[in-house]
Parts: sequence; C-alpha cells; structure tokens
Amino acid sequence: MPIEILNNTDITPSIKKQIHELFKTLNADMDQCDIDKVLSQGNDFVFACYWADNELLGMASLATYKVISGYKGMVEDVVVSEAYRGQGIGRKLMEKLIAEGKRLHLSEILLFSGHHRKPAIALYKSLGFDLKNSGIYTLKV
Amino acid sequence: MPIEILNNTDITPSIKKQIHELFKTLNADMDQCDIDKVLSQGNDFVFACYWADNELLGMASLATYKVISGYKGMVEDVVVSEAYRGQGIGRKLMEKLIAEGKRLHLSEILLFSGHHRKPAIALYKSLGFDLKNSGIYTLKV
Repeated sequence: MPIEILNNTDITPSIKKQIHELFKTLNADMDQCDIDKVLSQGNDFVFACYWADNELLGMASLATYKVISGYKGMVEDVVVSEAYRGQGIGRKLMEKLIAEGKRLHLSEILLFSGHHRKPAIALYKSLGFDLKNSGIYTLKV
Repeated sequence: MPIEILNNTDITPSIKKQIHELFKTLNADMDQCDIDKVLSQGNDFVFACYWADNELLGMASLATYKVISGYKGMVEDVVVSEAYRGQGIGRKLMEKLIAEGKRLHLSEILLFSGHHRKPAIALYKSLGFDLKNSGIYTLKV
C-alpha cells in the first residue's frame, strides 16, 4: 500500500525536502509552514503521503478542530506530482483522509476548491462532497 | 469591557447553560459539542463572549490549525441574541477574534457564510474579509 500516514518521528531531511519541493509545484511563492511544526500538533492532524519507490508523488492534509457545531476536519494542501496526475492518486489520498476522519469520529469534513478547478471538483463530488450554499471569506492577518 | 475570552476554568453550570441556549437560537436541531470539550483544546482556540449584567448576549469562536500553507484560524458559531442584534455586538466579537488572531500570529482567518446572510456578509467585508473565488464543500462523516 503506497499510502502512508506520516508522523513527526518519520521525518528525515530527505522526506522534508521532498514535501517542500512537492508543495512548491502547487504554489512556488508561498511561505511554507515547516512540516515539523505542522506535525507537532499531535494525533488529531492527519498527513497522508503517496509513495512510489521512495519518491513522494502526492500528499494531502486533514486538520481537525472542535467547535460547538461539531468536530470538524478541514482538507488542505492536496498536491499530486504533475507527471502523475489523472492516475487516481488524488482519489486514494482523499479516501484515506475520509477513512481517518471516520476513525476520529468527525461530524463533517470540509474543503474549499477554486471554482475553476473542474477535475478536482468532480473528484470531491464523486466522493460524496456537496457544495454548500455559502461563500468562503478570508482575511490576511 | 463586556467582551471576555472564556477559558475552561471559567465554566460554571450557569455559563454552560447560557451557551447551550444561545447556540440553540442559531440552530435548535443540531447536536451541540459540549463547551467543556471545545475549550479543552487549549490555548490555540479562542472563545469570545459578550456579556451584559451576567447575561450572555453573543459569542464567537476562532479555531486554529497549522498546515503547510499557513497557520490558519476558522471563525465558527457566531451568534448574537435575537433581541440585541443590530447593536454592533457581532462586530465587537469579530474584532476581538481578529485581535486574538494577530496575537497568535495567524497567517489568515477564514470563515464561511450563507450567500443569503446579507447583514453578516456586509459586516465581514467591512472588517476586511474578501470573498474567495472558491466553493466550500462538505461531507457528513
């Protein structure tokens, strides 16, 4: 099974570098939060990786939080290496996050996706995600 | 200053009951997550309350999480008591959450709001929030 949940103790300099480089293919300009810091949040955070021959081909994160309206998971930073897209890696990563969300007894899983990202949206809908009748608003702090 | 950040040690049965009743005015049917459990997440979670004469008139939550793309805050469960709407309580609660987000050095604060909720959207925009060109998708787990 090439899908693995990565924990803080699994991190090596080589893995750290691969995560950094793969994220850059999604957004080259963004300041990345260090994967060590991200994973130091403990067990309620899920970081799924897809490997082939020690090469990181895809990754996806599920950050969780508890509020009065439920115990929620937010999918973030789903990236598949450009040369390996369209092969179902994104689906396998998402299925893993959903399975982990069930294991954690989340009440719902959320994600946001650009309106123009048609293949990603088709994938999310095929996994059971529904578009909410809401807008998402952001404030840079 | 009637705005207070509530911590786990501040919870009394009376406060717990008021939070439960106020949330019911937002959604009477939803299973509520216990405020004790919500506040047990520690310091990276902000629960702002607006009080007048020991009566809870409004509340708002800021849940935080760290991912590669940033240290983010999600605004959730903003409720103002029906009889006290239009008096700036929602704005004061939101300003408090933004100030706390700055104190925590978040990179961005997110929220989602129903497209029909015009007064709330006007408030969020006046505080500097921008609508993202994205849809928000949800999966009940």
